[in-house]
Amino acid sequence: MADSLDPRTRLPVVAMVGGGQLSRMTHQAAIALGQSLRVLATDPAESAALVAADVQIGDHRELADLQRLADGATVVTFDHEHVPTEHLRALEATGHRVAPGPAALVHAQDKLVLRAALAAAGEPQPAWVAATGVADVEAFAAGHGWPVVLKTPRGGYDGRGVFVVDRPAEAADLLARHGTLLVEQRVEMRRELAAQVARSPFGQVAVWPVVETVQRDGICNEVLVPAPGLSDELATAAQELAVRIADRLGVVGMLAVELFETADGVLVNELAMRPHNSGHWTIEGSRTSQFEQHLRAVLDYPLGATEAVAPVVVMANVLGGAASTEDWAGPALDERIHHLMAHWPDVKLHWYGKGQRPGRKLGHVTALGSDLGDVRARAVAAARYLADGVVDDAFAFDDDDDDH
Amino acid sequence: MADSLDPRTRLPVVAMVGGGQLSRMTHQAAIALGQSLRVLATDPAESAALVAADVQIGDHRELADLQRLADGATVVTFDHEHVPTEHLRALEATGHRVAPGPAALVHAQDKLVLRAALAAAGEPQPAWVAATGVADVEAFAAGHGWPVVLKTPRGGYDGRGVFVVDRPAEAADLLARHGTLLVEQRVEMRRELAAQVARSPFGQVAVWPVVETVQRDGICNEVLVPAPGLSDELATAAQELAVRIADRLGVVGMLAVELFETADGVLVNELAMRPHNSGHWTIEGSRTSQFEQHLRAVLDYPLGATEAVAPVVVMANVLGGAASTEDWAGPALDERIHHLMAHWPDVKLHWYGKGQRPGRKLGHVTALGSDLGDVRARAVAAARYLADGVVDDAFAFDDDDDDH
Repeated sequence: MADSLDPRTRLPVVAMVGGGQLSRMTHQAAIALGQSLRVLATDPAESAALVAADVQIGDHRELADLQRLADGATVVTFDHEHVPTEHLRALEATGHRVAPGPAALVHAQDKLVLRAALAAAGEPQPAWVAATGVADVEAFAAGHGWPVVLKTPRGGYDGRGVFVVDRPAEAADLLARHGTLLVEQRVEMRRELAAQVARSPFGQVAVWPVVETVQRDGICNEVLVPAPGLSDELATAAQELAVRIADRLGVVGMLAVELFETADGVLVNELAMRPHNSGHWTIEGSRTSQFEQHLRAVLDYPLGATEAVAPVVVMANVLGGAASTEDWAGPALDERIHHLMAHWPDVKLHWYGKGQRPGRKLGHVTALGSDLGDVRARAVAAARYLADGVVDDAFAFDDDDDDH
Repeated sequence: MADSLDPRTRLPVVAMVGGGQLSRMTHQAAIALGQSLRVLATDPAESAALVAADVQIGDHRELADLQRLADGATVVTFDHEHVPTEHLRALEATGHRVAPGPAALVHAQDKLVLRAALAAAGEPQPAWVAATGVADVEAFAAGHGWPVVLKTPRGGYDGRGVFVVDRPAEAADLLARHGTLLVEQRVEMRRELAAQVARSPFGQVAVWPVVETVQRDGICNEVLVPAPGLSDELATAAQELAVRIADRLGVVGMLAVELFETADGVLVNELAMRPHNSGHWTIEGSRTSQFEQHLRAVLDYPLGATEAVAPVVVMANVLGGAASTEDWAGPALDERIHHLMAHWPDVKLHWYGKGQRPGRKLGHVTALGSDLGDVRARAVAAARYLADGVVDDAFAFDDDDDDH
């Protein structure tokens, strides 16, 4: 490992596959640790490529590009789950460290593999089956009722690749288009939670408070920290579940366990093995951010303290509105940021430098305080104003979606 | 100004003269605001050049290099005071925004100019005179007593260019070497304080809590926040003094007012018009860091909230010990960081990526909490361990220098 240190700084070089906002924010954390993140981006205008000093342009599906990224790096890690498993094995075979390793990462890449592993471990999850034909779906629905949820095992995120299906014909259509699908019962849930942990190769694990993730159209809109009204018992159970999964799968780096809260406890929805939207609050809200912790974990450094630094933290995503950058008729971005800062001097902005497109994650804001209603109102209003530039909606909190 | 936005992000481009750690940490803050700091470094291995995407190599004393830096930038600012005033005026004459402007910045560049301006404003400062010959020094000492303090008007920092002089012969030597010198009475001080404010072109001012700066050999070793035992009256007086100076001089960006606390109140020592070592604590310890605030101020964005986020914050510098990188026989840097993280999981590290040289500022650490003794012990022990790798000294707090 000594020969994979940066000769200029005598410190490690972490290489991250993917040039999105997770990579961008990981670079910020790397700077504090004396490092400079090496980024594999597909385009020089990607979020992280705009700000990092050590950028390679390449394709995460091309082994040659991955090999070039790994050469001279201490460890290779990821801002997404789209690198083929065989390439990761090839990197390991040529002596490169990959974190998380392919045997762990596949559980965040393939929902059928995850379901089977959780079943083998006896962990709580929705009833499920793998369906290759419509008869499998009908048999499952006979036991669990319609509608059922069909999911593509790979490639889905932010609600893509997830289908709520009422009838066999719909299922047949989807199977014809996608091949084998994961079928799950539609869970009667109270809300969605997330439990984040980091794990190092040594086996050290650090766990953050359990959060509520407020989703709209399958995309995380808000994260409330700690999850409001969650009992200590259920919070501890969710944390223990996340730690068990991290240990059993041999995760290295950040693990986000997305959970459904039901009347009977929590069920595992899916996993992410990287910094995750549910942990953006940690930048200002926790003693150690998920980005710093991910670096510490993949480098097998000891992990940092994870306690929240305020009684309440709320993160709100800024999602692109109806117009793309080209069609935008509202106040210019620089002007919106100006007004944001004037109106909410204590709300923290994170802008990703991406072009505006409908539904795209453009940035996020974080507010801290002691009263959930107040903190949430500020974060949500600030995020909405940044997204759509409309003052009417933004300067008063709309609580239509506030169901607890 | 619209045509000086980055066409890729539609956001401003701040250009900073200097590639040191202040520039490095300003780049981190720029990333959150959707920006990427443009850095003028003298060498590609400088602290900020290692981590920034937009680096130009050049000389801050060469107007052509400064013009190239300014082209397409929204505003030019500084991580040091060494740019000649005439170059700044030339930049302004060609339509570039410079913040702080040359008329303000000269007060941080030239101690005689500062002393005259403070005298004209009636602000508290040590008795002083400009000396061109030894007779000036003798006349001053006849009124104020020996020893006196002689300072080079320009170019000094971290204790360089400051001489405590007991006899006329010493003064004559220094005058022969340096030309005109500032002569000051040697102040009977209790300790050193710093008051930091930010000011925007619009005239908005934000002020942080007054801090104590613990100096050794003229170099800041620790910053204690808030200054322990400082009365509300004196804290307010110091803040008001800093605001008055920022307004009167037309400062744009960060202003640090270094102060001597005496039995009669505070006296102005010197000014820095940029992020400053006395404000590194704000990264974790304040809602808005001095680096983000500097960007907001030079861009004429509204300023961020400045309250401390913990009852006590202590920043400790990591200063290079006796050995340079090449001669270092102790534990390797990566190993020291490993142990630091293991022993102090809640101490925050900022490593600047520079080679190790005696007395050089290599990084800093920040600790937060509620008990000054505990917080200070952790910060100082962590910084010392990083600097010298010796466990005996580091793991117990040495309070020899703890004089209050």
